[in-house]
Formats: sequence, C-alpha cells, structure tokens
Amino acid sequence: MKFDLVVTDNSSSARAGLMQTDHGTIETPIFMPVGTAGTVKAVHQRELKDDIEAQIILGNTYHLYLRPGLDTIQKAGGLHKFNGWEHPILTDSGGYQVYSLSDIRKIKEEGATFQSHIDGSKHLFTPENVMDIQRVIGADIIMAFDECTPYPCEYTYARKSMEMTHRWLKRCCDRFDSTEGLYGYNQTLFPIVQGSTFKDLRKQSAETIASFEREGNAIGGLSVGEPAPEMYEMTELVCNILPKAKPRYLMGVGTPMNILECIALGVDMFDCVMPTRNARNGMLFTQHGIINIKNEKWKNDFSPIDETSDLYADQVYTKAYLRHLLQSKEILGAQIATLHNLHFYLWLVKEARKHIIQGDFIQWKNKMVVDMGKRL
Amino acid sequence: MKFDLVVTDNSSSARAGLMQTDHGTIETPIFMPVGTAGTVKAVHQRELKDDIEAQIILGNTYHLYLRPGLDTIQKAGGLHKFNGWEHPILTDSGGYQVYSLSDIRKIKEEGATFQSHIDGSKHLFTPENVMDIQRVIGADIIMAFDECTPYPCEYTYARKSMEMTHRWLKRCCDRFDSTEGLYGYNQTLFPIVQGSTFKDLRKQSAETIASFEREGNAIGGLSVGEPAPEMYEMTELVCNILPKAKPRYLMGVGTPMNILECIALGVDMFDCVMPTRNARNGMLFTQHGIINIKNEKWKNDFSPIDETSDLYADQVYTKAYLRHLLQSKEILGAQIATLHNLHFYLWLVKEARKHIIQGDFIQWKNKMVVDMGKRL
Repeated sequence: MKFDLVVTDNSSSARAGLMQTDHGTIETPIFMPVGTAGTVKAVHQRELKDDIEAQIILGNTYHLYLRPGLDTIQKAGGLHKFNGWEHPILTDSGGYQVYSLSDIRKIKEEGATFQSHIDGSKHLFTPENVMDIQRVIGADIIMAFDECTPYPCEYTYARKSMEMTHRWLKRCCDRFDSTEGLYGYNQTLFPIVQGSTFKDLRKQSAETIASFEREGNAIGGLSVGEPAPEMYEMTELVCNILPKAKPRYLMGVGTPMNILECIALGVDMFDCVMPTRNARNGMLFTQHGIINIKNEKWKNDFSPIDETSDLYADQVYTKAYLRHLLQSKEILGAQIATLHNLHFYLWLVKEARKHIIQGDFIQWKNKMVVDMGKRL
Repeated sequence: MKFDLVVTDNSSSARAGLMQTDHGTIETPIFMPVGTAGTVKAVHQRELKDDIEAQIILGNTYHLYLRPGLDTIQKAGGLHKFNGWEHPILTDSGGYQVYSLSDIRKIKEEGATFQSHIDGSKHLFTPENVMDIQRVIGADIIMAFDECTPYPCEYTYARKSMEMTHRWLKRCCDRFDSTEGLYGYNQTLFPIVQGSTFKDLRKQSAETIASFEREGNAIGGLSVGEPAPEMYEMTELVCNILPKAKPRYLMGVGTPMNILECIALGVDMFDCVMPTRNARNGMLFTQHGIINIKNEKWKNDFSPIDETSDLYADQVYTKAYLRHLLQSKEILGAQIATLHNLHFYLWLVKEARKHIIQGDFIQWKNKMVVDMGKRL
C-alpha cells in the first residue's frame, strides 16, 4: 500500500490524500460503506460503484468466518471473487462483534472464546488465527485483533485491556509478517489505538501503536456511547501523535457532523453502519438536515427525495412514495433509502476533499455541520 | 386501447399481438410482474425497465386503497406518477385479496364488506366504488369486480357466484362507461370469466363475458389449487369462446410451463406472484430447470447464476454467493433472485413470441416444458 498526502489544510489538520492498493486507488478522506456479511445491505455491487461511487467497502471477519465460512471463501478465491466487488476491501478483526453479538464470550490472554449468534457453536479468536482468517478473506487492509472497551469504562480495566491489546498487536504483527497473501496481491495490517476516554492511556496507546510503524493506523473504542466532545478530544489527541505520513482510520464513526469534525482533526478513513441501518428505519441524511421519512408530514410530499442530488433514486422517487414503501415495510424502501444515505455520505467526503484542496475547508465545514444537524 | 394480431400460429391457438395503451405498446404474449403495493418487491423501476424489460406491471387495488390510500394517489396524479413507473399498468379489482387476505368478509348482492388486514378497519367494495377507486389509481387496464371461487367448489355455489359476478359486471360497466379517467389518458375495463372447473358454467360465463364486448377479456378463478390439466381444459374451452380479435388475460398463472401451455391455448397476458415470491425463498427458474439455491449442493458452486442469461445479476454473482445471501437472509439475496426470475419470465414470453412469428412455436414449447420442469 502507498499513501500520498496531496494537500494539508492550513486552518485545520484536515488532509487530502491518495491511497493505492492492488485493487485500486482511494481518494481520502473516504467513507467506507459497511458490507457485514459480504454485502452492503440492500445495494447491488453495480450501484455501489456507479451510483454511490464507493471506493472501498468493509467486511466483518466475525460474520464471514461464521457464514459462509472460510472454506467457501477460500475456494472462491477470496472475498472479492466471492461477492463480485473488484475494488478495495477492508476487514475488521472480529473483536468488536465478539463483544457486541455473542451471548457468551470470555476474554483471556490467549484470545477470546465466544458462541456464534447464529447456531450457538463455540469458537476461539486469537491474534494469530484472526490474521490467518483475514489472509483467507483476502481484504486489502486488515485489522489487528483488539479489545474494544465499552463506555463508560473503569480506568483500571481500560488500562489492562489496552496493555493486552498492545501485546496482541505484537502477536498479530509476528503472524502477519511471517505469512503471505493467498491470492497474489498485497494486504496491509493496521493496528488499533485503544485507551477508552482516558487521555494518558490514549497518549500511551497512540505512541505504542505508532512505534509498530505499520502502513496505516486506526483509532478504536470510540463512538461507543461517549459524548461527542469526548470523542473529538480523544481523536485530536491521538491524531497529533500518529504519524502524519500515514492514513488514519477512525473506526465506527459516525454522523455526517462527526465525520466532518474528525476530518478537521486529521482523520482520513471512516466506516459506520449509520447510513445503512438508519436508512432502513427511515432516517435520511441530507445537506440541509435530517429527514424522518416516516413522519406524517411527508405523506403527500411529491417532491423528489433530494432535489440537490444527482442520484437516480433521489430524482425518480418522491418523498411520499418512499414514505409509503417504508410504512409498508417494502424491500424497495430499504433499497432507496440506503442508496440515498450512502450516496450522500460519499458525496460529503468528496466535497470535503474538494474544499481541503481549494483551501476553504473550515468555512465550508462550519456551515455544513450546522445545516446537516437540522431536523427537517 | 388498440390490439392487433401480428401472427396466429398454424399448429396451435398461440398468437403474437401488439397492444397499444396511452403509456406505451405491449408485445403479446406478455408476462406482467406483480407490483402489489405500487412496487415490484425488491426491484427498482429502472431495473424493471432496463434489466427485466418489463412492458406492463400490475398493481393491487385492495392494497393501494388501504395504503397509501386514494387521497395520496389522487394528489400524486395517479399511480404512474406516484411510483415513477411511466409505462402501462394494470390493476386487479381487489376481489381476490378481499377473499384471501381479510379475516372477516361478507359477500352479498351489494358488494363485499371486509376488514383491513393492516388495521382491522371495516370497508365495503361494490362494483361501482371499485370502478371509482380504479379511476383514481389510474391504471391503463382495470378489472371488473368479481367473486373468485375457491377450489374445490360446490356446483351450486359456483353457479350462483358466477351469476352474481355477471350482474356485478353490468354494474361495473354502467359505472365505468358513465365516468372518465382523471388524468387525461384512457383506461379500459376487462371483464372476468368465472365458473370454477365446471364446463357448462365456464361456457356460459365466457359467452356472457364476450357479449359485453369490452376491449379485452380475462379468465379468473383458475390457478387456485386445481390440477394443471383442469386449468388447461377450462382455459382452452374459454379461449375458444372469447373473441379472437381481443386480448385474453389469464389471471394468476403460473409456472413457466403453465405459461407456455396457455400461450398455446390462445392466452395473451399473464401475471403471477410466483417469480417474485419464490425468488425470495430461493427458487430460481431457468431454461434448463428449477434451482433451489438454498441447497447444500450450490455452497461452493462459483459459476454464474445463469450462464445463458445476459442479465447483469446473472453474470456478476455466483450461485454460491446468492446461496449465502439467502441463507443469511440478506436483502440483496431477494434482490438478485427476483431480478433473475422476472428477467427469465420476460425472456420466456419474448422467446415464445419470436417462435410464434417464426412458425416453430409448438416444437420449441414442447421441448421447453420438459426442460424447464427438471430439478437441477
């Protein structure tokens, strides 16, 4: 992987970059749609590329490992071949899902044992086998196995957990560096900063993670319930320590406002289920504010879903029609709303990049975060 | 509406025709995808037109009347404007849904009272108000209000029901002919032959329906559980009575095999939920047989969904991937399988038309019904 900074903003820590992977180049800052089980829910691969203009998507190691399973993915020739998405993919390490989805899990030095949320079967994730699993899945960027602490979190627990995450990282790197990709293209491993909302832990973790000198770095353990100001404070602190020349990935963030604020703090990559999950519940993000399309007020509003958008679905369908579809639990409602939100998120980071290059990012960002937060 | 017979087959009663409506021309024989609540489930309007090459879709009066309701549809300017489908639409009369979906319904001479399956509210459908409702929905082709008898059905009940359907038809025609379309284009009313599986009743009904001299005629009350030979026998009997110069619509039929057999008997128009509903359960129709994509045997089959198809989804996605999506209850699974099945149904009737024009329809049909019925 190769990362080039194209422009660094004068009035903030925002940056515009170019990330090159064997599956294509990514313009940063970028938002990565979440494709949990090898599919971005309700969206065709063709729509992801042509309508949403996604440049990289996420897969979840936990889900893919359980279903369809490694045997099928390996026989397919990796996730790209399995799901027909020929562009870059990033996989998380499965750690977050072990903690959030499994009924029973136990974390110890060796790794995490858990029961499948699908069939109750028992499994063990270790730093080593999570590397092996991500070799089989074959994403361009893979993540270290970490523990994501909840919020709020006791200081002592946060410290011990962070220290274990650092030890696990050493094991991840050892395994990753002694193995090779299975499908003839390169993979790169990103480590993850933890430390909950404690400044000294975050500082210590960022310094430790930076010392591993991987090709990119991630910030985990945020957007787990803490107030936004705390998220921004931790992100700023960590970004100031992580190397400037490498991409920074803030995991699981966030609202359109969160994303612009964190771009200003120096983050290059984002992922979040919000645009897809909230779409299915009728929440639409637009540059003028948030629409709850299920509200009675849209019942007879026959204007296009988003007049400012060049997306097919935003032009052809009306607010009243989308409301009807979601009220009636029609699949097409989920399809349209998801297309809209993902297209908006990708438009937003593209605009941010444009303004970073133009040199007026901060003025634009300050206006956008006010506008986008309104309730329409 | 204008209907022209292009070619009549020498070896069967199959015909190739052209039906002109104010929203476009339809090549017959045709299959009409079912868009119950104003949406063909899991399919974008753009996909319907460009990928599936649908020429006309169905809407259900019962569903649209209950949700979004007539007020919204009228304010939108009719169903075409409401859902963004600019091509022909046909609506059924709601009769079938009253009998199949409502918990409580009562049929008397005046009409049918029923409780909404959504909120339990009480409603009355009469021949007159069903015409008014379909004026508001604004489909190009609308259906008479009838009673669809179940199978099996007592002779006496079938006769009385048929006679009432005929009296209701008179009331439908009186109302339809004394009103006008609301949106500046023409609508046409198709009456429906009933009579269950009794030859004398079917004959009597077909003669009565023909005597109304509407622009097209429909055959109802079949594909409700009777054996296929009975369905074919009734269809043949009725087609021999209904006027040759007008389109014949066989309601709710059927499998790909049923459709080819009934084209041979002189049917021009079909609709059925089978390609869409069965798709969501993993049943795929192909020219070489039926695939249950959830079967273990497809788990590691990385061949395209259908190698003989020119559909995007059939080429880009593999059987193993589609199986994974449906096993995981992913929305994209429903999307892909629905696209496949509808594309196949539309391909099938297009091929049928081609062979009718070429003059080798029967030979082709006889081979296809054997091939398509196989279990792959």
